[in-house]
Amino acid sequence: MDKIIEVNPRDRYIIVQPGVVNADIQKALLPLGFFYPPDPGSMNSSTIGGNIAQNAGGPRCLKYGVTVDYVLGLEVVLASGEIIRFGSRNIKDVTGYKLSALFCGSEGTLGIITEAILKVLPKPEAVKTLMVTFNDLDNTARAVTDIIGSGILPAAMELMDQLTLNAIEDGANLGLDRNAQGTLLIEIDGVKEACDKEMEKIIEKVRENGAVNIQEAASETEREKLWAARRSAYGVFAKLAPDIISEDVTVPVSKVPEMTRRIIEITTRYGLRVGVLAHAGDGNMHPMVPADKSDKEEWGRVEKAFAEIFKAAADLDGTLSGEHGIGLAKAAYLPLVMNRSTLDFMKKVKQAIDPDGILNPGKFV
Amino acid sequence: MDKIIEVNPRDRYIIVQPGVVNADIQKALLPLGFFYPPDPGSMNSSTIGGNIAQNAGGPRCLKYGVTVDYVLGLEVVLASGEIIRFGSRNIKDVTGYKLSALFCGSEGTLGIITEAILKVLPKPEAVKTLMVTFNDLDNTARAVTDIIGSGILPAAMELMDQLTLNAIEDGANLGLDRNAQGTLLIEIDGVKEACDKEMEKIIEKVRENGAVNIQEAASETEREKLWAARRSAYGVFAKLAPDIISEDVTVPVSKVPEMTRRIIEITTRYGLRVGVLAHAGDGNMHPMVPADKSDKEEWGRVEKAFAEIFKAAADLDGTLSGEHGIGLAKAAYLPLVMNRSTLDFMKKVKQAIDPDGILNPGKFV
Repeated sequence: MDKIIEVNPRDRYIIVQPGVVNADIQKALLPLGFFYPPDPGSMNSSTIGGNIAQNAGGPRCLKYGVTVDYVLGLEVVLASGEIIRFGSRNIKDVTGYKLSALFCGSEGTLGIITEAILKVLPKPEAVKTLMVTFNDLDNTARAVTDIIGSGILPAAMELMDQLTLNAIEDGANLGLDRNAQGTLLIEIDGVKEACDKEMEKIIEKVRENGAVNIQEAASETEREKLWAARRSAYGVFAKLAPDIISEDVTVPVSKVPEMTRRIIEITTRYGLRVGVLAHAGDGNMHPMVPADKSDKEEWGRVEKAFAEIFKAAADLDGTLSGEHGIGLAKAAYLPLVMNRSTLDFMKKVKQAIDPDGILNPGKFV
Repeated sequence: MDKIIEVNPRDRYIIVQPGVVNADIQKALLPLGFFYPPDPGSMNSSTIGGNIAQNAGGPRCLKYGVTVDYVLGLEVVLASGEIIRFGSRNIKDVTGYKLSALFCGSEGTLGIITEAILKVLPKPEAVKTLMVTFNDLDNTARAVTDIIGSGILPAAMELMDQLTLNAIEDGANLGLDRNAQGTLLIEIDGVKEACDKEMEKIIEKVRENGAVNIQEAASETEREKLWAARRSAYGVFAKLAPDIISEDVTVPVSKVPEMTRRIIEITTRYGLRVGVLAHAGDGNMHPMVPADKSDKEEWGRVEKAFAEIFKAAADLDGTLSGEHGIGLAKAAYLPLVMNRSTLDFMKKVKQAIDPDGILNPGKFV
């Protein structure tokens, strides 16, 4: 099931089977001047079926939204063996319940996706990328909200804390300031003249917030280098121990610095290392903890630390997952962000659709 | 239940009770430099609770998406009297099923919305508006897809056919060419320099498609005048007879001219007048037929004509509703766009959530 069935840029959709890899959708669209916005870190290997089941995000989802915003229609095989189709090739469609959104992010618990109609967008003509370091984490986060507050919605605003920056610098050797408390990788796209003007305003805003080092990518090669550095963070941390736990808590943007501090305080208290990486523009944070799963004592500390991190996110009006989902690992923590009636309601929906519980049993619901 | 509970531009959300009028949300946000994108024609009178229940759209939904794309979280009272809350203040949230999307567009059949958390966006600094007439309907529609194909996604592209244009001209006296077969009202927004450049490209594209008259709004007053003319269409048609039926079929954009021809052919064959108005950029078409409901013979023709129009939309890969919903009027036509298993599936969801069928009984499902 790995075929692209129809590419229709004129009507702004593409129809694919679930086994098509995200990056292959991009490759089919780019020569036509279009693109599919959701860009999970796994885009070179993850399939669109998985992306839909997880409601995948990615850095540029700040500006463009996540997978659910691009699913126009689905074909799904139910537990009963029946095949249902809903949604359509139409950008706007309010015919019946918004079932595509119910299945998007349902983690395989409601049905098996066998075909998807996805909305695509015209590709912006220009892109500009900036790496900025700060001496203070609060200032780093304030720069993020100041930029949005000034009327600019960048494609991406990635925040890295000091440990993450140093891990990146170990690998990529960009000459970044290892003392910087916070780093932002900012990307904007659109009409060239708009990018130029917005970039000026962004530089003004990061300066107002005490930016130390501002490095703009002067070419596509330099841009690729900055992004490769950002993407290397996970790999660098993964090498520090046999296992790595990369979490996905999300808080309102203004609470990113407070959440970062709490993550560092909690992990330090449990004797763990942590790097904090965030899609800062939408408050989606990925604390990464290298550890050894076979070391039961250490793993016990990891679990306790993350329980506290989830609690901290909930206390800050945040939530358990921004783009990775709940699965098995976080099902126990759902009561932190949902009352009993809401959990029962999800169970009721699941039971009505899959009464024998044969679809991805044991997952979150 | 008409209170605005929290306005938080920094974290890009607003929390409202369901009785707040759409336009009052805009008024609360504009002084802060933000806005709430969905702009249904009824925005000065319709409440956000109704907007969510219908998954309301509007002209600028071409660029910005419809209501479901802006509902971050809801509080809902179920048929059982239980209160559930889902979603959160977070722009990204994949914790559990995407229930906000299930309730959005559910037309009151699943629960009563008592609070909503809505995503808001920074307001673009500039806006430009253009009225263009064409001698040919195909060219009018091709201009629409050519503009999108050139990498521009305008905020709005409204198409009016000849009868609608003449009705508008009767009322507004803009000096438009009454012989024009198609008219486009195009609006772009964003950074000023980007608007200037995009407007040049748009003018190039409409010229390539044989534009006859191009009129750009030189001031906010002129812009308001163009929009007032567009908005007057419904009122003008409503005055032609005791009743008016304004439908909401949607087709893929490239099929807008074919659908327009079929609408005109069908209504003419049944001896009815029709004006065709379309949010052309997303293929959402509003054929307006003035008629007299108390005249049973005429009303019979109206019903037959619309049955054929729905069939035509389905034949062109279209759907029954882009933004108004299904309700009572179109429930019988659902099998045109959904198979039996899909309809049964929606019933199963409804029965699981509202087993006694007390919520908005008889509606679509």
